[in-house]
Amino acid sequence: MRIAYLGPSGTFTEEALLSEASLAESTHIAKSTITEAMTAVVEGSADAAFVPIENSIEGPVNETIDQLAFSSDLLIQREVVLDIHLDLMSAPGTPISSIQQVLSFPHASAQCRGFLREHLASAAVGATGSTADAARIVAETDQSGLAAIAPPLAAKLYGLEVIAHGIEDFEANQTRFVLVGRDTVPAPTGHDRTTIVCFQGADRPGSLYAILGQFAARSLNLTFIESRPTKLALGQYCFVVTVEGHVEDDILGECLMELRLEIEDVKFLGSYPVPGEAASKHREQVASNRQRARRWLGELRARVEHE
Amino acid sequence: MRIAYLGPSGTFTEEALLSEASLAESTHIAKSTITEAMTAVVEGSADAAFVPIENSIEGPVNETIDQLAFSSDLLIQREVVLDIHLDLMSAPGTPISSIQQVLSFPHASAQCRGFLREHLASAAVGATGSTADAARIVAETDQSGLAAIAPPLAAKLYGLEVIAHGIEDFEANQTRFVLVGRDTVPAPTGHDRTTIVCFQGADRPGSLYAILGQFAARSLNLTFIESRPTKLALGQYCFVVTVEGHVEDDILGECLMELRLEIEDVKFLGSYPVPGEAASKHREQVASNRQRARRWLGELRARVEHE
Amino acid sequence: MRIAYLGPSGTFTEEALLSEASLAESTHIAKSTITEAMTAVVEGSADAAFVPIENSIEGPVNETIDQLAFSSDLLIQREVVLDIHLDLMSAPGTPISSIQQVLSFPHASAQCRGFLREHLASAAVGATGSTADAARIVAETDQSGLAAIAPPLAAKLYGLEVIAHGIEDFEANQTRFVLVGRDTVPAPTGHDRTTIVCFQGADRPGSLYAILGQFAARSLNLTFIESRPTKLALGQYCFVVTVEGHVEDDILGECLMELRLEIEDVKFLGSYPVPGEAASKHREQVASNRQRARRWLGELRARVEHE
Amino acid sequence: MRIAYLGPSGTFTEEALLSEASLAESTHIAKSTITEAMTAVVEGSADAAFVPIENSIEGPVNETIDQLAFSSDLLIQREVVLDIHLDLMSAPGTPISSIQQVLSFPHASAQCRGFLREHLASAAVGATGSTADAARIVAETDQSGLAAIAPPLAAKLYGLEVIAHGIEDFEANQTRFVLVGRDTVPAPTGHDRTTIVCFQGADRPGSLYAILGQFAARSLNLTFIESRPTKLALGQYCFVVTVEGHVEDDILGECLMELRLEIEDVKFLGSYPVPGEAASKHREQVASNRQRARRWLGELRARVEHE
Repeated sequence: MRIAYLGPSGTFTEEALLSEASLAESTHIAKSTITEAMTAVVEGSADAAFVPIENSIEGPVNETIDQLAFSSDLLIQREVVLDIHLDLMSAPGTPISSIQQVLSFPHASAQCRGFLREHLASAAVGATGSTADAARIVAETDQSGLAAIAPPLAAKLYGLEVIAHGIEDFEANQTRFVLVGRDTVPAPTGHDRTTIVCFQGADRPGSLYAILGQFAARSLNLTFIESRPTKLALGQYCFVVTVEGHVEDDILGECLMELRLEIEDVKFLGSYPVPGEAASKHREQVASNRQRARRWLGELRARVEHE
Repeated sequence: MRIAYLGPSGTFTEEALLSEASLAESTHIAKSTITEAMTAVVEGSADAAFVPIENSIEGPVNETIDQLAFSSDLLIQREVVLDIHLDLMSAPGTPISSIQQVLSFPHASAQCRGFLREHLASAAVGATGSTADAARIVAETDQSGLAAIAPPLAAKLYGLEVIAHGIEDFEANQTRFVLVGRDTVPAPTGHDRTTIVCFQGADRPGSLYAILGQFAARSLNLTFIESRPTKLALGQYCFVVTVEGHVEDDILGECLMELRLEIEDVKFLGSYPVPGEAASKHREQVASNRQRARRWLGELRARVEHE
Repeated sequence: MRIAYLGPSGTFTEEALLSEASLAESTHIAKSTITEAMTAVVEGSADAAFVPIENSIEGPVNETIDQLAFSSDLLIQREVVLDIHLDLMSAPGTPISSIQQVLSFPHASAQCRGFLREHLASAAVGATGSTADAARIVAETDQSGLAAIAPPLAAKLYGLEVIAHGIEDFEANQTRFVLVGRDTVPAPTGHDRTTIVCFQGADRPGSLYAILGQFAARSLNLTFIESRPTKLALGQYCFVVTVEGHVEDDILGECLMELRLEIEDVKFLGSYPVPGEAASKHREQVASNRQRARRWLGELRARVEHE
Repeated sequence: MRIAYLGPSGTFTEEALLSEASLAESTHIAKSTITEAMTAVVEGSADAAFVPIENSIEGPVNETIDQLAFSSDLLIQREVVLDIHLDLMSAPGTPISSIQQVLSFPHASAQCRGFLREHLASAAVGATGSTADAARIVAETDQSGLAAIAPPLAAKLYGLEVIAHGIEDFEANQTRFVLVGRDTVPAPTGHDRTTIVCFQGADRPGSLYAILGQFAARSLNLTFIESRPTKLALGQYCFVVTVEGHVEDDILGECLMELRLEIEDVKFLGSYPVPGEAASKHREQVASNRQRARRWLGELRARVEHE
């Protein structure tokens, strides 16, 4: 399997990709943007794309979400979560006191504001296209006093020395990545999620409350919700919603049908397994109760007289 | 088929029973109370009972509803609606000016308050167990100045003369009757209703809002709702709900299952055909839209990979 | 104060009236129907009416509710709850074995079905206009084998002997009575309720869910809800709702305003004190939290710049 | 008044600032990040900050939202909307065919993907910290074949020549900017909005439905809603909500109070005037209806007897 990912080599995306044995063995194709990685799948030069979709500090990665929602018919195939640690790195032997400029992807440097304020208050902060790019530029540039904020993997890859480990401000820093592919939906595993985009009619704004009511009425647990501009006018939104369960589940299928009836449009972005068992206890309990309720319904229906 | 009905002969219940060809041909057994008519079915001396369940002026007939909800496992088999016209009747030749006492079933005399105030302001109003009973007593009693408020049928039956036709205060006076039987549920006809009783847990009062939310989320149209005391303590209620649709409908079945999951108990009182086509246009439209939504769901599910 | 009540003397209504010192001292005027008692207030021949509004077994007393909702502008002034005990009574010295006919108000005999089945299976059951009427008729009639089901008070009043005490089927048998008057609303006491009637537009049926949402959004506790036919057509209902709180409460006032905006019409039936402290703990807790929230809002508003 | 804004000179932020006469006259202090602009207000070196908060294509500007929600107690004072047009610019006389690298703020170049694919398919795209920075670098660098995507204002400021006007992909490209200040809330103008952050309790996730129910029950119109990670753990969110109305409005104040009662915490981010009259017709209608409802409530309350 050929997997296009958000490169260059040395990004957190690659680190996440290598962290899963079954994905690590594939052929990896580095792309310089999320859009390029996903377009490669649409155009057939890759079988799947591996891209970040949400960070616990920065929130959703809108380029990924907008590509899924507006610009392709790709489906999410699985989810991978990676702990994020950012390191300050430079050419071997560089003392921290000599650093005058720090390069990184803006989101990454934003996550190290505390460290930068305390230890590098006078250094300038420059933007690069990715954290790995920052490491590469530092390695390739012959300029002294230059450092990068990048993943540990990038230091190894570009021969830099780590000056400070784990300099991010927040401890609970994790990123969710998704593998997206064409056409098929993975079979249910018992710990799956489903993501859809809900488009409300132009003449019926403010329907988010009604949309959420459909999930609430079925005790379906939402794990993620984001409003995105429809790009038609300021103040017009659609809603990206992730819910526990699989499109093959009776109750979730029925919920999708009702949403499809109620609102302008529903776009399906996939049903896919998620790591961990956290959510599944609640789901098992609900499933077992529902089994009993279904039996009761079956008994009622058995009494219907058909000639 | 032996049908026990709320008698005696000459009541509106009998009139309604005779109004439907298929029911008119059965063997009719007059009972003096709704409870006795329904008990005859439970005990097997009748195959079905025919009783009033709601009047457009007086509201629900609680004896019928409580028997269904609390005291039997009978199921509603069909519904009949009758226009109600009340006549003032007395021994032949009695002038209205000579009437000193008017007998009727209290609900019936209550529906003629306007006429009584205007034309019989000084006459006493007495209570009998049914409107037909009032006619029978007037016919059997040798006392002059006595009149009955009763259905036209009762005048014929007991040889009385109608002094004034249609003396009820409200024009839109109709009564819904139900045929109730044991065990079986009639097959769906396309214009059916389903009646259930929702029992909320003692520790979760005020759940009516959540109950109605289950119907609202599925665009299921409620045609009747009544709160009834559970007879356990003042202020504890259950809810009798009638909804368009049949227990075999996917969407209604799913709604019943979810209610069963959410609340203390759900008692099924039947799915049964209703007269008239009034509601069915709306249902057809919804059904056609739902068909399209179901096809869409089927297409999504066809993409799931099962080994 | 002149209080018209549902007579005749000896009814539970009189018993409830006498149970409250402040009401017991008034002038009492017995009326033969609820409607007559209430009409006396409208017409000015009485200052207030005292009538039953709900029984824990039989449910709402629709004549009272319909008079309040449709036929008058009277307002509920206070509420009284009475434990209901029904006695079997007859002429002194009558053995139970000789009883051939039992008279009572139909609701009352319905509540003694168990006792009647066990001890008087062969006796006929006759209807009277009130339980006290049954006692009076038994006392006045010279016929042997006649008994009444009536309140203990009626036995005393009409010189009958109680054959069996407390023959009602259900233990938790209580009736709520209301004192209704003209024009004024009692000042808040801290344990009050408010009753309204909600009329939905003919073009927007099924709005009960939206109505209940108004109360739910404000954590207002509903203690009673009944759907009543509007008497315009079968299947058209309005909703009588009782909620904890007083029209002077900020939150309840706001809720009434919003209902008034949302639906066809809201009819106010009064804010009035209720006996007991049961509900008030919850209300106190909510009131104290709301006090804090109000202070917070006050602080925000204090920051608004007005020139 | 000293206003810190997201600089450098030549950004859309400056263009928006200059577009409003009353703001154009203030002292403007360019800051290199949104955080620095807002921190200047917190620390007192500026009286207000002017920063972007939402773009119709890219969606919310999370740095601004997170600063308001998590890192300061600043309040929004007013809102300015600017049409966004992006120009391709380079050193005077540069033909488009000679361009080998295009610099811009990543969001801006992302909005010109269509133009870049069609006309500059082989050019590399580089990231800068702002669109104005891109123009400055192009002007200062002596390298040929370099171009910037930046606002028209930047071309003037840095002496560049516009090669192509309005190269953005989407027509409806607008950005909302906010002026944020300390402590005070502007007086109501009749066309105001209020922004809050709703924090749900850790033990009660999924409360967004209940939060939206509070607005829905009061017919309050939401114009913006975004979920933001709380930065405590992946999958924990708070909700930034903007609603039409002012904290001094009765109905909105009551809604805020109820939210404060229901959920973990509510942070107030300001009530402020918005440009345009679009929303105000609906608000006027609602306000007029509510006025009538308030009068009705006042009449009810006038009937309460206070000794």
